[in-house]
Amino acid sequence: MKGKVYLVGAGPGDPELVTLKAMRALKEADLVVHFAKTGGTSQARTIAASHLKTGVEELPLFYPMTSEAPRNGSVYRDALREFYDAAAARVALQLDAGRAVAVICEGDPLFYGSYMHLHVRLAPRYPTQVIAGVTGMSGCWSAAGAPIAQGDDVFMVLPATLAEPELERRLADADAAVVMKLGRHLPKIRRTLARIGRLDHAIYVERGSTKAAVMMRLADKPDDTAPYFAIVLLPGWGERP
Amino acid sequence: MKGKVYLVGAGPGDPELVTLKAMRALKEADLVVHFAKTGGTSQARTIAASHLKTGVEELPLFYPMTSEAPRNGSVYRDALREFYDAAAARVALQLDAGRAVAVICEGDPLFYGSYMHLHVRLAPRYPTQVIAGVTGMSGCWSAAGAPIAQGDDVFMVLPATLAEPELERRLADADAAVVMKLGRHLPKIRRTLARIGRLDHAIYVERGSTKAAVMMRLADKPDDTAPYFAIVLLPGWGERP
Repeated sequence: MKGKVYLVGAGPGDPELVTLKAMRALKEADLVVHFAKTGGTSQARTIAASHLKTGVEELPLFYPMTSEAPRNGSVYRDALREFYDAAAARVALQLDAGRAVAVICEGDPLFYGSYMHLHVRLAPRYPTQVIAGVTGMSGCWSAAGAPIAQGDDVFMVLPATLAEPELERRLADADAAVVMKLGRHLPKIRRTLARIGRLDHAIYVERGSTKAAVMMRLADKPDDTAPYFAIVLLPGWGERP
Repeated sequence: MKGKVYLVGAGPGDPELVTLKAMRALKEADLVVHFAKTGGTSQARTIAASHLKTGVEELPLFYPMTSEAPRNGSVYRDALREFYDAAAARVALQLDAGRAVAVICEGDPLFYGSYMHLHVRLAPRYPTQVIAGVTGMSGCWSAAGAPIAQGDDVFMVLPATLAEPELERRLADADAAVVMKLGRHLPKIRRTLARIGRLDHAIYVERGSTKAAVMMRLADKPDDTAPYFAIVLLPGWGERP
């Protein structure tokens, strides 16, 4: 008898933005798995904490390195591959024992999540259910009350890591956009948006759907400091009836 | 005493993909508002049906026309503007009476929803809470088990209504993409993806998170018939450790 994997989207941060389906999976799970940086706590686990069964068995998996910096290097990629292979093997043992395993994922599991590395290793071999979640960016534009895209808008998600000329080309070509992973790239995003005449419409958001949310017009942000997970919203919807 | 508007994301179709926050708003609401085509039923209302209080007052609002075809014309735009103005006025009357009003929205309220037309008319004047929801496209890629974007992928949402050269240019420039509003544009999407060598990776999805879901490789779809709300997924994530 084989077990089952639930890839559970925990939403953007507010524990109330968890779905009924996610809660049910967490109740049915014999084992709850989550990823965290070494020495850290899983953000997804924190979001879902109030929905876990008391005393449920947990398996925290710690990434082998704390920085994403040298990610193009083969050393980094090899270490990550080994980590995911080992993680998949540990979960597979549980599944072979017939257990139901819930992997908690921040936001939506298959949208820029690290959990999909586990998914591609396990889904071909075990019954799998992916439970869609509210994305972090939905949490942000909802908290800001900013309609992000409408009608025939072209919408883009761009990593702030792109080189400045590419960022400019793409942002100028988008009706609506979200720029993610701001961190130290904030000055570049600000310059680029100013150059294409769209800085005045851009919104800066940190921790969108939590009580610690920070939101302001990007033009009003007084400094160039931003956490890695801060984002910039560029709402579209030029033609409003 | 002024009332409050809740813009409630009902998720992609599965009633279990509703959030706890959405359910609470529906329980607190004195009035539930939804939009539908004339003679039709609101899809959002159908999704949320099991979460409505028995006997709660409802206000269905019927769009003035059933086709989106002549949407660039001023006649269409004027009719739509009048409709939204009148709808906002009706809801405002309820809010002035101190009532809590929940507007139910399919997917995520501020992501390609019609409800944002009401939002921009009411939010400046009344206390408003936007409750983020799982988008239709998240529902689709989760149902398909297809990791859509990862790492530094550039992700795009493109309407199938774009002209073929523009579609080709944009799809060739995206790591990952969702093409929405397929309908009669399906043959154009298929041709374009074949031309840029990406047809083999494209996935066709209808009604992603419902029991009536239809999913297949786009290359395997035997005909050119697609409903308006069908979408094509083009997963990114070229470099997997």
